[in-house]
Amino acid sequence: MLVGYLGPLGTYSHAAALQQYPEEELKPYGTLEAVVEGVKNSEVELAVLPVENSTNGEVRAALDALIAEIGECPEIKAVGEVRVRIAHQLFSRSSNVSQVERIYSHPQVWGQASHWLSSTLPGAKCIDCDSTSQAIERAWEDKNGAAIAGSAAGSVYGIKPLIANVSDRDENTTRFLVLAKQPAPENKQHTMVTFCAAQQDLCKTLEALVSSGVQVTFLTSRPLGTHWTYRYIVEFAGALASEQVREALAKLNQVTPVTVIGAY
Amino acid sequence: MLVGYLGPLGTYSHAAALQQYPEEELKPYGTLEAVVEGVKNSEVELAVLPVENSTNGEVRAALDALIAEIGECPEIKAVGEVRVRIAHQLFSRSSNVSQVERIYSHPQVWGQASHWLSSTLPGAKCIDCDSTSQAIERAWEDKNGAAIAGSAAGSVYGIKPLIANVSDRDENTTRFLVLAKQPAPENKQHTMVTFCAAQQDLCKTLEALVSSGVQVTFLTSRPLGTHWTYRYIVEFAGALASEQVREALAKLNQVTPVTVIGAY
Repeated sequence: MLVGYLGPLGTYSHAAALQQYPEEELKPYGTLEAVVEGVKNSEVELAVLPVENSTNGEVRAALDALIAEIGECPEIKAVGEVRVRIAHQLFSRSSNVSQVERIYSHPQVWGQASHWLSSTLPGAKCIDCDSTSQAIERAWEDKNGAAIAGSAAGSVYGIKPLIANVSDRDENTTRFLVLAKQPAPENKQHTMVTFCAAQQDLCKTLEALVSSGVQVTFLTSRPLGTHWTYRYIVEFAGALASEQVREALAKLNQVTPVTVIGAY
Repeated sequence: MLVGYLGPLGTYSHAAALQQYPEEELKPYGTLEAVVEGVKNSEVELAVLPVENSTNGEVRAALDALIAEIGECPEIKAVGEVRVRIAHQLFSRSSNVSQVERIYSHPQVWGQASHWLSSTLPGAKCIDCDSTSQAIERAWEDKNGAAIAGSAAGSVYGIKPLIANVSDRDENTTRFLVLAKQPAPENKQHTMVTFCAAQQDLCKTLEALVSSGVQVTFLTSRPLGTHWTYRYIVEFAGALASEQVREALAKLNQVTPVTVIGAY
């Protein structure tokens, strides 16, 4: 079975795919959109997609890509979840952290190590890279450079970190959804849905959620780009087949069409 | 009276300050954090802070900075709102758009012109700048460069756009909050609050909102960085002194402490 992930080798997405599917063949993609398209086009049977980090919040670009593709191809669903502990490390050719002038990493990482960076390397310039793996490659070409990346990336390049844990919070975790072209499982513990609502309908949607007694575990909004209408992404504790979730979806559907993203 | 904004000259924050306070002296700051600190330290009486774009959504860094400073100095409140129409323009020394190889702008802009960019300049490299004004300066040093910025930035540098409107959506608007060290006005049309809730308390907070009958016009979440607790930012239609808003705040306060961000 082929499993897609956001490459290159050594990214946290790679770590998620390895953690969940150690026996399967893995296929890297260059962008989050391409990961979802890989499932849509049946190039891979499954893919892992980062959707939320416990420090930084939702991965907007991933959720946007997933929702856009589900719109075109409703067969794509989230059918599982993988949680990966994120322990950022500092990798450098230099053996002395005080010589580091430039730090390379993925933009998502800065917010997860900002306290460490401002206390340890306040003068260093942060340079955005497409991935933490690319960050290591660029840092290796720069004798006063360092990369922030995970231990998986270090393993791929066969190098050890100069400083072992530079995350601001020990419990830094990213959760990934497992995507597949198959119906959302009916018996999983969590259900994720999305719907759109103009400002004047927001209360009606909240009422539908609350009155059905379903336990909401995550709720966020994204603008639709037309004044001022939002897409909401809501996660329930409860199986898709449970009475409460069915009731919540039925009530929500009376206000605005609901799309099931998946269950896991 | 001094009014702070995110500089340099020609940014959209500058345009917002000019639009609302054409007669006042304006003071630029280098970062969003510094804008809020300027109010806290009484260097300026007022400041404008971008909090939401109709295409891109909330300006996370601004909301985070505001909430952090309100935590330390509860006297800071949002006391007004300014809405600025964002009409991005392409500025270039080159007179031929096909010669543009590099595009400079603020990262917030890419998501507001992504369709235009991918259809007109699919091969161009997008380079992040600290501000749209800095983008113009850098584009001027690069003969195959162009900047995406607003007409205010063009006016500051005395240059005309090569292409007049490159925003993906005509109605692209950013709203700014006006900050001051004074109590939130009791009689304005909208009230914004923030509170924290763990997953298991989210439903109780939604119930408090819905049962008070208050009209919710904006609701989003940010992670607190501890597993999995969120800060919610909620906007109501209704004056702070209105019965419904008072009831909603009282009910919310029974679940979790609520901080008033302001009224406008």
